[in-house]
Amino acid sequence: MKYGASMFTAQPIGFIRSPYRETSAIPKGLRAKHDAEGAIELLREFEPGLKDIEGFSHLYVLWEFDRSDGFDLIAHPPTDEKRPHGVFATRSPRRPNPIGLTVVELLAREGATLRVRGVDMLDGTPVLDIKPYLSSIPEEKLKRGWLAEAEKSRD
Amino acid sequence: MKYGASMFTAQPIGFIRSPYRETSAIPKGLRAKHDAEGAIELLREFEPGLKDIEGFSHLYVLWEFDRSDGFDLIAHPPTDEKRPHGVFATRSPRRPNPIGLTVVELLAREGATLRVRGVDMLDGTPVLDIKPYLSSIPEEKLKRGWLAEAEKSRD
Repeated sequence: MKYGASMFTAQPIGFIRSPYRETSAIPKGLRAKHDAEGAIELLREFEPGLKDIEGFSHLYVLWEFDRSDGFDLIAHPPTDEKRPHGVFATRSPRRPNPIGLTVVELLAREGATLRVRGVDMLDGTPVLDIKPYLSSIPEEKLKRGWLAEAEKSRD
Repeated sequence: MKYGASMFTAQPIGFIRSPYRETSAIPKGLRAKHDAEGAIELLREFEPGLKDIEGFSHLYVLWEFDRSDGFDLIAHPPTDEKRPHGVFATRSPRRPNPIGLTVVELLAREGATLRVRGVDMLDGTPVLDIKPYLSSIPEEKLKRGWLAEAEKSRD
């Protein structure tokens, strides 16, 4: 087991174009729909890395919570305000490593730009990585802990 | 649109315990099964961040490819060796930001340790983040580009 690994400094490979200019505009809470269209504008130097990406319907986008500062180990998500949860059991932006993860649907590629559906990032968010979405856990096998309880208690 | 964002330096929140000591031991290629059991050993200081994680059946683990150095924009995945693909259309470890993403099944929590199934990381891999897995794209909506073609051509 190795401790004290040498860690990397994140670098943007591009930026998100999104209709959301401020956090309050992003749909949040139970069953919030994320079907907003936007784009991933890759920096020109990374464009060759997109070869053959058109064949995938869905992508993972890793990005930086660049307008969040610091972290809390206990989070108060908007979906369950009265009950705090550990940050790793939530999608809170205030994380030890401020990395966000979003699954988007790929609509089209135009050179270094990917037009996508499902953005929940702020406009101008730095993108760290894009990966193909290859398989899903079947919904019937998923347990969703406090979030499922919060949904049930509001139904 | 903001360019030149101030980027963070990744810090480990814990380390992976895995049966794989070297890259060659990790199952790769078409339909490789990832059902190996392992653990996420969080550093003690981050343990409060796990509160209520037990309720989730599956987790996203973000981690560092710490034994990979540098990146290539064109990758030669083992599943399709004769046809190169853009790095962002593959799971290659040689990425501009060396971040890996794995979905694991949570088997049990013991204090700061999560016992999980589905590890495909090397033993000692630094962990950057853990997020709850909340929903899936239905398999029938997925298109898997060159990977599906490679599978078909071998059937």
